[in-house]
Amino acid sequence: MSLHFEIERTTGEGGRRAELTLPHGKVQTPVFMPVGTAATVKAVPQDILEGIGPSVQGSQYTPAAAGGTGAEIILANTYHLYLRPGHELIRQLGGVHRFMSWTRPMLTDSGGFQVFSLAKLRKISSDGVEFRSHLDGSKHFFSPEHSMAVQIALGADIMMVFDECVETPASWERTRDSMGLTHAWAARSKAYWEQHRHEVPWASEGSGPSVQSPEERERIGSKSAQDLFPIPYSLFPPAHQSLFGIVQGGMYADLRKESAERLVEMDLPGYAIGGLAVGEPREVTREMIAHTLQFLPADKPRYVMGVGYPDEIEEYARMGVDMMDCVLPTRAGRHGLLFIREDPNDRRSPVVRLNIKKQDNATDQRPIDEGCHCMVCRRYTRAYLRHLFASGEPLAGTLNSIHNLSFYLETMERVRNELAATS
Amino acid sequence: MSLHFEIERTTGEGGRRAELTLPHGKVQTPVFMPVGTAATVKAVPQDILEGIGPSVQGSQYTPAAAGGTGAEIILANTYHLYLRPGHELIRQLGGVHRFMSWTRPMLTDSGGFQVFSLAKLRKISSDGVEFRSHLDGSKHFFSPEHSMAVQIALGADIMMVFDECVETPASWERTRDSMGLTHAWAARSKAYWEQHRHEVPWASEGSGPSVQSPEERERIGSKSAQDLFPIPYSLFPPAHQSLFGIVQGGMYADLRKESAERLVEMDLPGYAIGGLAVGEPREVTREMIAHTLQFLPADKPRYVMGVGYPDEIEEYARMGVDMMDCVLPTRAGRHGLLFIREDPNDRRSPVVRLNIKKQDNATDQRPIDEGCHCMVCRRYTRAYLRHLFASGEPLAGTLNSIHNLSFYLETMERVRNELAATS
Repeated sequence: MSLHFEIERTTGEGGRRAELTLPHGKVQTPVFMPVGTAATVKAVPQDILEGIGPSVQGSQYTPAAAGGTGAEIILANTYHLYLRPGHELIRQLGGVHRFMSWTRPMLTDSGGFQVFSLAKLRKISSDGVEFRSHLDGSKHFFSPEHSMAVQIALGADIMMVFDECVETPASWERTRDSMGLTHAWAARSKAYWEQHRHEVPWASEGSGPSVQSPEERERIGSKSAQDLFPIPYSLFPPAHQSLFGIVQGGMYADLRKESAERLVEMDLPGYAIGGLAVGEPREVTREMIAHTLQFLPADKPRYVMGVGYPDEIEEYARMGVDMMDCVLPTRAGRHGLLFIREDPNDRRSPVVRLNIKKQDNATDQRPIDEGCHCMVCRRYTRAYLRHLFASGEPLAGTLNSIHNLSFYLETMERVRNELAATS
Repeated sequence: MSLHFEIERTTGEGGRRAELTLPHGKVQTPVFMPVGTAATVKAVPQDILEGIGPSVQGSQYTPAAAGGTGAEIILANTYHLYLRPGHELIRQLGGVHRFMSWTRPMLTDSGGFQVFSLAKLRKISSDGVEFRSHLDGSKHFFSPEHSMAVQIALGADIMMVFDECVETPASWERTRDSMGLTHAWAARSKAYWEQHRHEVPWASEGSGPSVQSPEERERIGSKSAQDLFPIPYSLFPPAHQSLFGIVQGGMYADLRKESAERLVEMDLPGYAIGGLAVGEPREVTREMIAHTLQFLPADKPRYVMGVGYPDEIEEYARMGVDMMDCVLPTRAGRHGLLFIREDPNDRRSPVVRLNIKKQDNATDQRPIDEGCHCMVCRRYTRAYLRHLFASGEPLAGTLNSIHNLSFYLETMERVRNELAATS
């Protein structure tokens, strides 16, 4: 068993309030997953990430604590960690949870999307993709088997099949051919996963391996990471990683249907919808999601990759999407763009972007969003945040990211409550 | 009354364990003051700054809290805040405490040192200094009166007289002339401070001014900073800012003596020793401090500006210096240099610098310093911190700075305990 997915309630619209149990803990869905590309959610300490978002019921705000329930699951990028510091090093250190000191569930993507969007001089064959690193130009090769090996070494709770991503727009024929490759690669991914999933760093023991030999540790007399901040591996019944399939098919409804059906035949623990939010109009994204969802099994988690704005993630959650991720809250935060509600007292009012560097924030003593309960909105003014941003201070990126992530998590908490209350 | 300084014990060496009471709270001395140049200790959220350093007795570490007593006083730079966002704006927003949401004591320097080290095209007259901003080349003029006006607008608990800093090395004659100007400027600083100190933003009322008129607040229906995170002004008996003098005199013992005597005649609330750690050998710094201290009144706080390494601050504290500040812990942290003890189990063993980017940290599962109790050493490994630094991740600067600041504060806590126990 690689995961439990228990649906508490499904609305008429198809939205589901559910709970996902993974080896490192439980996740309330629908969920937004902050992106920690290089094993760090950019500019946000793990200590704070554990306390952002909706307030813990009855908890008092203390200045040094964020006071929220925190991110229940985060994402890391296989392509980035493979290149730096290297998956072998992370495996040797006990996996990505122990490496970054994160005790809760994690998900890794397959590296496919980054190979297609970041890497240089790609050569694609049916076997896999040869590419050059965007960091130093060095040559690498990713196949489905290699992506699986890397993701098993990283040891996230959920891993993704290796897929090909077509450029946008692409013709029907080009999209169909790419989809065919994706399906063949999904089958190879599954075969490798089934054969090797016992190799995950935390599979064999309750507390994972130590990088230092007993003699070495005796010599240096030192605490290692596992004494320092123990990660309770396999605390929950699922004993190994889950592999999710990725539905492709571009903007073609017939291909999306075919892709979903081929993947469902493979009987994977969960399914993602990929290749969206790549430049198409938002109505098309929505249409493709709605169309694809009907071909995915109702009893398994459904994940839409790489979306989106807060109002989009809310809309897709109501349609029956259980998991989403996006770099937007952290990236926008580092660029001084903050998400707020048009009417701070109505958390269902439209989402507005506040550009913190604008001059009219310079003397504004209000918090970013008066209706937000995050640690930034409970303490700092727009005037101060504008000053930090205008002065290029690193604290600007940290505080802005914390607010935006909290805004996303509070939005999802409200949606979950509404889904649970809807018949 | 502008401060209370109560000495609990003085050792044979001259070191003093004391308590300094300022309008925004009490400070245990000897103290190290983290530098918050632009109203932010670079890369460290205030929420964490309040909890770094020596552990609170009996407190449990919780992941989102740093668990220490925190920085009891921090410094901000007048020159930087004058240029950006401007002292008038900060005055209008209720002073620097409210601006940055910092409830504890603060100190501002006079701007003199930065005018001499950062600004361009300086023209010095007996009246003051004309200079061009290092940010945009705009022309400005600082006189003792103007520095005081700026510092009163900022409203830190302690402000510094405006002084001239000579280049190093400088001849005896050049140093004497500069010192003369510094004394004249100190007298003018004092006169202005005495006449205008009631203008500090928090002097007149318990809770400070609001930037919005009642009508404006009614219209926007909003919380302002003072509702958001109230700063308890004048919680402690001292009712206004303190002005400290600055002893100059370069590396000439006779000039240091004369400078100290002239300033002591002015009967200021505290005295600083300036113009040191500007490139001279460490023995000279030490000699000048030891020589100068004997001419300063024993019942007033003594502050050595801009020093230094952890072993230096420890040494000067034992000699009778009560306050020190330095950008080193944060600047070194951002450059990947971490302070540790040679023997982690002996907190009095020599200070060593760990260069986190070195390859041999890549698989090291130990914390930075096994004997350190900071939130970074209780959670993250050298391997992870090396990865963050090597990948240019913003979290590197944050975590490294938190460790280094905690290292300094823990060092001072130990020194205070040892001073209190020494007869």
